[in-house]
Amino acid sequence: MSLPSLRLKANAERRLRAGHLWVYSNEVDVLATPLTAFQAGDQAILEAAGGKTLGIVALSPNNLICARLISRDLKHPLDKSLLVHRINVALSLRERLFEAPCYRLVYGDSDLLPGLVVDRFGDHLVVQLASAAMERHKDAVVEALVQVLKPAGILFKNDSSARDAEGLERYVETAFGVMPEWVALEENGVKFEAPVQGGQKTGWFYDHRLNRARLAPYVKGRRVLDLFSYVGGWGVQAAAFGATEVMCVDGSALALDGVERNAALNGVAEKMTCVEGDVFEALKELKAAEERFDVVIADPPAFIKRKKDLKNGEAAYRRLNEAAMRLLTKDGILVSASCSMHLPEDDLQNILLSSARHLDRHIQLLERGGQGPDHPVHPAIAETRYIKSLTCRILPS
Amino acid sequence: MSLPSLRLKANAERRLRAGHLWVYSNEVDVLATPLTAFQAGDQAILEAAGGKTLGIVALSPNNLICARLISRDLKHPLDKSLLVHRINVALSLRERLFEAPCYRLVYGDSDLLPGLVVDRFGDHLVVQLASAAMERHKDAVVEALVQVLKPAGILFKNDSSARDAEGLERYVETAFGVMPEWVALEENGVKFEAPVQGGQKTGWFYDHRLNRARLAPYVKGRRVLDLFSYVGGWGVQAAAFGATEVMCVDGSALALDGVERNAALNGVAEKMTCVEGDVFEALKELKAAEERFDVVIADPPAFIKRKKDLKNGEAAYRRLNEAAMRLLTKDGILVSASCSMHLPEDDLQNILLSSARHLDRHIQLLERGGQGPDHPVHPAIAETRYIKSLTCRILPS
Repeated sequence: MSLPSLRLKANAERRLRAGHLWVYSNEVDVLATPLTAFQAGDQAILEAAGGKTLGIVALSPNNLICARLISRDLKHPLDKSLLVHRINVALSLRERLFEAPCYRLVYGDSDLLPGLVVDRFGDHLVVQLASAAMERHKDAVVEALVQVLKPAGILFKNDSSARDAEGLERYVETAFGVMPEWVALEENGVKFEAPVQGGQKTGWFYDHRLNRARLAPYVKGRRVLDLFSYVGGWGVQAAAFGATEVMCVDGSALALDGVERNAALNGVAEKMTCVEGDVFEALKELKAAEERFDVVIADPPAFIKRKKDLKNGEAAYRRLNEAAMRLLTKDGILVSASCSMHLPEDDLQNILLSSARHLDRHIQLLERGGQGPDHPVHPAIAETRYIKSLTCRILPS
Repeated sequence: MSLPSLRLKANAERRLRAGHLWVYSNEVDVLATPLTAFQAGDQAILEAAGGKTLGIVALSPNNLICARLISRDLKHPLDKSLLVHRINVALSLRERLFEAPCYRLVYGDSDLLPGLVVDRFGDHLVVQLASAAMERHKDAVVEALVQVLKPAGILFKNDSSARDAEGLERYVETAFGVMPEWVALEENGVKFEAPVQGGQKTGWFYDHRLNRARLAPYVKGRRVLDLFSYVGGWGVQAAAFGATEVMCVDGSALALDGVERNAALNGVAEKMTCVEGDVFEALKELKAAEERFDVVIADPPAFIKRKKDLKNGEAAYRRLNEAAMRLLTKDGILVSASCSMHLPEDDLQNILLSSARHLDRHIQLLERGGQGPDHPVHPAIAETRYIKSLTCRILPS
């Protein structure tokens, strides 16, 4: 296989040598190797300015991230063979970590498969392709997954906004076998069904698994409020771990159908109350009604999607967490999560501190959790780390 | 009770209003209220420059941290009554979290008891007093602990360097009842004995409890190396969780006696090997002998005790972690911990990344752990957060 070259400007190779996988378009020596000569999804040999080869990249010539390193070994381009190998390496970690076959099987760059995400729900796989190269290799992705896992069904859930920058259209389609509307999974020993076709992202958020597992000692025998509950990942686990009562609030009827379905699966339907509506409105009404909870879980969707949302987003996190604190009993626990990659953990911590002080409370930060080990962080790529979960105790001052 | 005033300079109250508990000597309006008028351990009413009262402080007039906020309520000075109340508030959290009565019961500023640390080993308590005010109230501390917990023994392990800045001498003495040389404890369901009289700090490090609990899926069926093992907190738990073989390395014979004692307690003595000696030397010898381990745990003592140690300390962390990586099998796990408050987690992560790249390896950061919830972080006081534990998978590049 003979591949064309992509030449970097002087010193632009340093970040890649230090472990990073991305090439930005302003780092390419376009006089030597014009990006316009490439089609989206093409592969090339990446060269430093001096001509030394760095590995094989896959190109997205019209994106700011114009190339991603596929392999540092020139013998291994992106093809079915590489996919099978990398999926097996990813699988061996997850099989070591989890008893049930339910996890994020492939997490993009961190598993050296940039642009590919695979969530496994037993025999069913949900795949997200987020780069032109993975889109072009979609058949090889399916073949590789079939070879390694022999699944009953594979769904392409290719409807994320990340595809726009790659010039890829959005679509959802069954790629192999049969995919039901809802699929079964298990997390921390609790049973769930996730709406893989019509739900958010891949249908389920495995990333908070360890943080949800840590709910157990806090919720036992307590009344719990789960804000932005989606299908009850936190709330139903809280009930299964021994909470006496759980109220789930979400704006989506589909999500709350999921809560009821999942509560029933675990025999805790009688403990659950579902409130459909805007979470901020619901917080006001609960305050007016003088409702109190021993534990409040606030795991909102990303309020800060882009850097320019930072100020408004921080204000939203502040409003949410302060309103949540107001509903706590005297010695209450707040689990405050954020999936905004642009919100550093320290900023969330400061928001919680100043909210507590504003209410004249003392705050103890008990636990700080991140994404689970099936979402490994690539330490050279800050974007691979996004989940924060801070468990706080709120006391009188 | 009538207390003298301690007056702050203009704006110096802001940090305290935002939640902090400390007053630095350069923040005091010494013309209005000379620090020389106070004895170490005296209490005073803290006032903002405008005269508004902020609460009660305890003084250490010769220390850079010259006063610590005891209470924002003028009715509650440091006395037995306040100690009993705050110890009960601290206890209620720990009882909620842990089945066995083994934990850090009081963690200084975070539990609003600046200068007081209490580790509980069932009926035995180990107390560290680190401020002049707590030293002056040592009898009240003992009385309060006896009232709340009815212990069999209380030990003052007052030999930390923090006492020097307070002008306090160092000593170890039994303060109540009987204290054996070794006391029993349980962590994550594993039994231990800790050398409370002659060991490090309070005799045991409860702070890594949750990080050790997370060893289970990584060590099962694997060969493990525990560097700076002390009495086997990591290594013996690894063996109890199903490791096939564990080698503990430590420079202290007392520590390795503890490993053997604790391995025997859990019926895993046959899996354990103890190596007494310098850890860096041992790493060289293991490398020369071509020994390999599936999991290496590196939890050294603080290499960075003061800010000026930063450069040398970082170099030591780099040397340690790179040597540890060299001993890993092809798909190995490194648990890299640091208790250096001055080493930010991101710096440790960067050290691991560059070490891995130096060895031409790909590194996945699987888990990041902090101190357990019996060591709550006070979010306004950076010094209360110190433990880092990064679990990494090291793969061929």
